[in-house]
Amino acid sequence: MNSYPELQPAARVLLGPGPSNVHPRVMRALLSPVVGHLDPDFLRVMEDIKKLLRLVFQTSNEITFPVSGTGSAGMETALANLIEDGDEVVIGANGVFGDRAADAAERLGAKVHRVEAEWGRIVEPERLEAALKALRKPKLLLVVHAETSTGVLQPVSELGRMAHRYGALFAMDAVTSLGCLPVEIDKWEVDACYSCTQKGIGAPPGLAPVTFSTRAMEAVRARKAKCRSWYFDLAMIERYWGADRLYHHTAPITMNYALYEALRLIAEEGLEPRFKRHLENSAALKAGLLAMGLELAAQEGYRLPQLTAVRVPDRIDDAKVRADLLRLFNTEVGAGLGPFKGKVWRIGLMGESSRRANVMLILSALESALTAQGMEIARGAALLAADRAYNDA
Amino acid sequence: MNSYPELQPAARVLLGPGPSNVHPRVMRALLSPVVGHLDPDFLRVMEDIKKLLRLVFQTSNEITFPVSGTGSAGMETALANLIEDGDEVVIGANGVFGDRAADAAERLGAKVHRVEAEWGRIVEPERLEAALKALRKPKLLLVVHAETSTGVLQPVSELGRMAHRYGALFAMDAVTSLGCLPVEIDKWEVDACYSCTQKGIGAPPGLAPVTFSTRAMEAVRARKAKCRSWYFDLAMIERYWGADRLYHHTAPITMNYALYEALRLIAEEGLEPRFKRHLENSAALKAGLLAMGLELAAQEGYRLPQLTAVRVPDRIDDAKVRADLLRLFNTEVGAGLGPFKGKVWRIGLMGESSRRANVMLILSALESALTAQGMEIARGAALLAADRAYNDA
Repeated sequence: MNSYPELQPAARVLLGPGPSNVHPRVMRALLSPVVGHLDPDFLRVMEDIKKLLRLVFQTSNEITFPVSGTGSAGMETALANLIEDGDEVVIGANGVFGDRAADAAERLGAKVHRVEAEWGRIVEPERLEAALKALRKPKLLLVVHAETSTGVLQPVSELGRMAHRYGALFAMDAVTSLGCLPVEIDKWEVDACYSCTQKGIGAPPGLAPVTFSTRAMEAVRARKAKCRSWYFDLAMIERYWGADRLYHHTAPITMNYALYEALRLIAEEGLEPRFKRHLENSAALKAGLLAMGLELAAQEGYRLPQLTAVRVPDRIDDAKVRADLLRLFNTEVGAGLGPFKGKVWRIGLMGESSRRANVMLILSALESALTAQGMEIARGAALLAADRAYNDA
Repeated sequence: MNSYPELQPAARVLLGPGPSNVHPRVMRALLSPVVGHLDPDFLRVMEDIKKLLRLVFQTSNEITFPVSGTGSAGMETALANLIEDGDEVVIGANGVFGDRAADAAERLGAKVHRVEAEWGRIVEPERLEAALKALRKPKLLLVVHAETSTGVLQPVSELGRMAHRYGALFAMDAVTSLGCLPVEIDKWEVDACYSCTQKGIGAPPGLAPVTFSTRAMEAVRARKAKCRSWYFDLAMIERYWGADRLYHHTAPITMNYALYEALRLIAEEGLEPRFKRHLENSAALKAGLLAMGLELAAQEGYRLPQLTAVRVPDRIDDAKVRADLLRLFNTEVGAGLGPFKGKVWRIGLMGESSRRANVMLILSALESALTAQGMEIARGAALLAADRAYNDA
């Protein structure tokens, strides 16, 4: 009578750009009973989520909570609340996610000034400064901390101070960085930051942690017109996540349980050991890939520890390699996007997926899949190089 | 070292305006392994979700899928895609959710014409027609099918044809109706409809099922300017949920598993038996409340079967009753909103929560809580009336 089969997705090793694997304790948290969005038991969880997110964002920002949508909903929350018609906005564009922010900002009525850089390279801070300088009244500077499409780590620690010198706010996309490497909101003077739950945080996808500085909230409160978005309007959402507990929308209870448990795991591990773990596994992966004769797409010195873009070698069928990884090893890596389509694989070692066993798995599996297509590889060199990297760490 | 306690929310009986209780099979579905948003195993689930949603929406609309946000995100998706600057929009406003849509539409640049009605009453179709007639070029008519703040069931079956006579599209908020009572998108000529997962559908909150007619999609494709919202842009989202499988944002995998299982349960029960179950439990609840001497807030003949707004009697402390229900019976009912704050309770019998045992529980518990505040009630009359209603059914 019912032709819809029981759910039975394969249990994958998730080594793409996210989602990453989820800790069993986080999975178990999903089973906590659903209660109302104003239930005293849920209000307590909300308060602890805010505290734990402040820890991960390294901030004392009052307005720190998870938006009820995925990472891009966090982006839209930042832009829709900070941008008003005609605002001048400078955006670093060196990959999919800078482009996305530029597109979203334009839709919201901003005059967007894109500061472009070649894919795989950072956006030079001096060029961002020049763009700010050229404007009479820049409202916002936005960059992507960890560009998921290229594996580039943008230097950001001075950009907040720089933006403030020109009277602009500083917003940062931390979708692929939060929970993997330091995101120091207060120290770096970041005014608005958004992330996701399914990468460095280690929960399933579905929420977008955000944080807003006092300076950002002053801009929100000084708006001439209401936020274009009812759903993402901070002025209303803060009355639910704050002391008023005024109903705005029904929070995704279950996803918040998962986020809480994932954040608790981060607090238990500690930020420093967690960042060190990501660095060590990344160093071993990169050593292995280079030993295999592969090339990395991101500029040296600015490579993300949690996401590595590797160039697809000549004469290798990109899609077949990914299909082999999935079919033979139950392992997912990411395909290239935009100009990198068919040109790179993106290997993520994020959150729970950042494990030595996974480094060994992906190096072995890639070696196997590439050899199957006739590429000549010194068998075992990758694993040896990875082992050496661990010994040197 | 870690001051954050283990999750242990109480297992409530959820008889408020949503979330409602979740079937154990849906809870179990949450534990299905998280995979990538382009994993072949997930793509199959997506296809089946679209088919099952078409069944529940009673439509053959190609563009039928769950938006990655809660019910209000569905509302924003409909409005942001259909409204362009200066569009004339007619909205029925007889409760919180019509007001919400009017607010959202104005933010998106619409000229909103509110057709108001007293809380607890329907918006008369003739008045909606008069509002459409008065406009040179109305773009959209929107009404709330089941007004959650008042318990009113709006007659909607002729509104699509009416809107079309005036060249307008017809949008309908089915947040509290889908899965509880007939929502006949094709038969009623509804062009855009949005709902949620945590009420009649019986999954946790987090997704917003939507459906758009061919006529609506033609309007979307004929837009002069891009959709104001990047996150909710149908032109992009349909390329992920459609055959292209083009990455837009990372779908909330786990919530989609839950939705799939909840929809599978609906398909197994069948729409007609499900609607009958909601009607029977509602009739018994209402008979019991009236026998207790309580008054219903919604106008007779237009009362929702799944959500009943009951007036708080004179000299009864609203908050204390709700606190007693929660503390003594682990049972949640909803408080009043806006002008109904402190004036009504909202008792939901939706999805999995619509059970005879829950009717008996809430009648007994209310009797107990009201008697505790000195109200004189003929003990047992409510349960007797409810039993009679079941026998008459």
